[in-house]
Amino acid sequence: MSAIGLTVAELAGAVEKRSGGVLRAQVHGDAGRLIQGVASLEAAGPTDVAFLANPRYQAAARRSAAAALVLSAAQREAVFPAGRDAGTVLESDQPYAWFAFASQLLYPQPTPAPYRDPTASIDPGADVDASARIDAHAVVERGATIGARAWIGAGAFVGAEARIGSDTRLHAGAVVHARCRIGERGIVHSAAVIGADGFGFAPFQGGWVKIPQVGCVLVGDDVEIGAGTTIDRGTMGDTIVEDGVKIDNQVQIAHNCRIGAQTAIAGCVGIAGSATIGRRCQLAGAAMIAGHLSIPDGTVIGAGTLVSRSIREPGFYTGFFPMMSNRDWERNAALLRHLGDLRDRIRRLEGRHDNSNPRGEP
Amino acid sequence: MSAIGLTVAELAGAVEKRSGGVLRAQVHGDAGRLIQGVASLEAAGPTDVAFLANPRYQAAARRSAAAALVLSAAQREAVFPAGRDAGTVLESDQPYAWFAFASQLLYPQPTPAPYRDPTASIDPGADVDASARIDAHAVVERGATIGARAWIGAGAFVGAEARIGSDTRLHAGAVVHARCRIGERGIVHSAAVIGADGFGFAPFQGGWVKIPQVGCVLVGDDVEIGAGTTIDRGTMGDTIVEDGVKIDNQVQIAHNCRIGAQTAIAGCVGIAGSATIGRRCQLAGAAMIAGHLSIPDGTVIGAGTLVSRSIREPGFYTGFFPMMSNRDWERNAALLRHLGDLRDRIRRLEGRHDNSNPRGEP
Amino acid sequence: MSAIGLTVAELAGAVEKRSGGVLRAQVHGDAGRLIQGVASLEAAGPTDVAFLANPRYQAAARRSAAAALVLSAAQREAVFPAGRDAGTVLESDQPYAWFAFASQLLYPQPTPAPYRDPTASIDPGADVDASARIDAHAVVERGATIGARAWIGAGAFVGAEARIGSDTRLHAGAVVHARCRIGERGIVHSAAVIGADGFGFAPFQGGWVKIPQVGCVLVGDDVEIGAGTTIDRGTMGDTIVEDGVKIDNQVQIAHNCRIGAQTAIAGCVGIAGSATIGRRCQLAGAAMIAGHLSIPDGTVIGAGTLVSRSIREPGFYTGFFPMMSNRDWERNAALLRHLGDLRDRIRRLEGRHDNSNPRGEP
Repeated sequence: MSAIGLTVAELAGAVEKRSGGVLRAQVHGDAGRLIQGVASLEAAGPTDVAFLANPRYQAAARRSAAAALVLSAAQREAVFPAGRDAGTVLESDQPYAWFAFASQLLYPQPTPAPYRDPTASIDPGADVDASARIDAHAVVERGATIGARAWIGAGAFVGAEARIGSDTRLHAGAVVHARCRIGERGIVHSAAVIGADGFGFAPFQGGWVKIPQVGCVLVGDDVEIGAGTTIDRGTMGDTIVEDGVKIDNQVQIAHNCRIGAQTAIAGCVGIAGSATIGRRCQLAGAAMIAGHLSIPDGTVIGAGTLVSRSIREPGFYTGFFPMMSNRDWERNAALLRHLGDLRDRIRRLEGRHDNSNPRGEP
Repeated sequence: MSAIGLTVAELAGAVEKRSGGVLRAQVHGDAGRLIQGVASLEAAGPTDVAFLANPRYQAAARRSAAAALVLSAAQREAVFPAGRDAGTVLESDQPYAWFAFASQLLYPQPTPAPYRDPTASIDPGADVDASARIDAHAVVERGATIGARAWIGAGAFVGAEARIGSDTRLHAGAVVHARCRIGERGIVHSAAVIGADGFGFAPFQGGWVKIPQVGCVLVGDDVEIGAGTTIDRGTMGDTIVEDGVKIDNQVQIAHNCRIGAQTAIAGCVGIAGSATIGRRCQLAGAAMIAGHLSIPDGTVIGAGTLVSRSIREPGFYTGFFPMMSNRDWERNAALLRHLGDLRDRIRRLEGRHDNSNPRGEP
Repeated sequence: MSAIGLTVAELAGAVEKRSGGVLRAQVHGDAGRLIQGVASLEAAGPTDVAFLANPRYQAAARRSAAAALVLSAAQREAVFPAGRDAGTVLESDQPYAWFAFASQLLYPQPTPAPYRDPTASIDPGADVDASARIDAHAVVERGATIGARAWIGAGAFVGAEARIGSDTRLHAGAVVHARCRIGERGIVHSAAVIGADGFGFAPFQGGWVKIPQVGCVLVGDDVEIGAGTTIDRGTMGDTIVEDGVKIDNQVQIAHNCRIGAQTAIAGCVGIAGSATIGRRCQLAGAAMIAGHLSIPDGTVIGAGTLVSRSIREPGFYTGFFPMMSNRDWERNAALLRHLGDLRDRIRRLEGRHDNSNPRGEP
């Protein structure tokens, strides 16, 4: 339960306002019910609002003790054809977005009070806004800029001449290296490292010569970067993450990549150097993107899929070996090694028939 | 070599005691040999105990200079049919577990002396047991609880109202965020992050609306969490790791997962949101588990395998593309893209024969 | 642009010297042009040197405003058959290595000035060279050794009796645990963890018994270790990373591995316990190496490839499921589960013909 309490009607009005007037919910039932929190269908109590994340959960919706449920018109008809006796329904054409805004209203992020922990190490030559909060053992190096209401968590590191935008939060132990920039309203989670050297070496005499990585990482506004995620600085030019990009945990983004605005990248994804990812793409968990390629706006890459060549047409692309019992896998994997033999045997069989391969297939 | 010295007989007695009387080894040879350490078969010297990890290493066992070898009865017969002249044999029906307990006895983990480093930042409103050890630059925030004999390593972070159980160790730089709980006798390795925000956003107007992540991470007793591993807090409910779970390095566990007791998760595994993993499961390295699914107790998932649907029957499941020479891969991968064509060609061939596909296969 | 300025001739001489006389470039055009930086072909201005990383970029090379381009003889003929009017060409038989050395000369890494930040926590029993630099909140524990001109970044951790070689840099937040050693001229990036416990547990009574991890991590000279990379200490013996190895971000190297000299390991690679990787190998991104196996010198493992058995012959090995449209994948993955059926149907067809499978294929 949050510290906030609103009636259903008040909450609906507040969501409408926060969404710029886009999300208008229609209230079926008691608009005066008190809402104090959000919860899952199962856990929701008499002051919670809940929503139907998945069609599979219709029975749970029927059983839910939630004060109010956010549903689309279709969901409402499917789940409560005769109306919901047990509580209120908020009908929205975008119930998930409605729920997200409601949750933000009920659990407001605290605006940090201006603060500089006495153990923080802030270079006198850093430009730290008076409204910022700097926690224990944080380090802000020479020439760094910390914007208004920014929050630098305990032990976080901001390198020389780096810039942290207004209202951006670095969680405990996040690292932003020299000259890199994070925009406004950003979130950088713990153990994320922005601006480590890219992996650049020229082969020479059986070993490797390091290529200095002298570019930066430039991160736009409204970007979230997950825990343990690494984004390397560019070799010569910069690595760029555009506005509104959302990056989950343990994602690796190599030097000189560009990630287009509003793209969402799930956990454990790796993106090799100089890849260009379009806007509004979705990379599912553990997808791997090879270097020096491009992916167009709006592309969806499935989980565990390796993208080894540029993609020309937006779409939904997949490539992972389907899971089987280990016994079946052993057999199918062995046959997979000999697809060429199977093909040749089919050819030989076809060769005994006239017109057996009329389309001249390989 | 450890600082401890025990005779073979003393060590056998101590292992028996520590294992609750379960592990009783039979001594063949000199029970008075001094044991001071454990070592691999090759490296073992005249005061070491070693064991046979793998049947392939029988020759190494024969050559080993170890003071004592822990073997099963079958191993003993296979390796030393005429007895071991060079030293003692400890016969156990669980040689690996016996070896593990022996190693714990020979290399006891230090109990930390009560200590608070003067550079540690401990909120006056935190409840730190007098017997705990808090190292340099560690941060313990308001309302956090640190149990008896717990050890908070250098630079580690314990957020507001988090709880660290008795005898639990956070290694240098580990992060446990606000309100999360780690049970007793736990180990959290460096750069692990417990309780970062889950990755939850609703699509809205071409961008994303953040859903506040207001749940916690609840970790049971006797849990080990590897370096760089991330476990996100729940969106509304909690992310739960039950007792005895062992998690290797760089594992990602997303919001609202539940990991059943005693399950072991190897390095680089990723588990997406709301997945439920049963008890005593084993997830091999780099396995990837999609969200909103369940895996029953006792399931084994092979390395590199993507689990994209719920599993109903426990078993050993596998799914990775077998490695080949790159040339073979190029050819087989190309054919794999056209399995449908091969199937159609088989069908056409079958169509020229009566009864050619008697079972009506696809 | 760097702070350095050299003529083309001076730069060529300096590269030749730094490469031990190996890299001698032939100057075509004005040897007196001033060079102040390196840049990509597109971004290069009139005081930059650029090079042709990829044959696809020939048009960009022609258009480039770079003061000088480093090209092989073949590239020079292909791109500028009639000579380059717009600027100078440096002809080298190893243009990439030449460029790397030139970049090092133009962007020299700063030698840290001797320094001990007053907030650093340095045990009086540590042996810190007077020329070393220790930044804010760094921790150097008892008995640790910090070599000449070593640089321990903000918040980095050096455990008891660990050794950091001369001219080695730990970036902010890097962790080197007790008794581990990093050689000379090394780089350990932020959030890397060297020497966490290996993942070793013996099954016992339905749970797990921890095997103490008492070995170390021994890292040779000239090794770079990426951000978020983890290298576990050996169980009994040591985990070994030989000289000149280059490791990218978020790589996991488990206990008791040995990584041969000059091997390069790209991002997101995982190497399970006791694997032995030869010298001068290349492991591409997200490759996964199972435990207790060996890979010979000079082997190349493709991206996303799982190596589940020892490799006997050096070569280029690949194994990932090729990406497809999701629709094609659905169909092909379904057929892949039934390769055995396809094979059986071919067999039945062959059985109707004499000599249809003359080579006795499976």
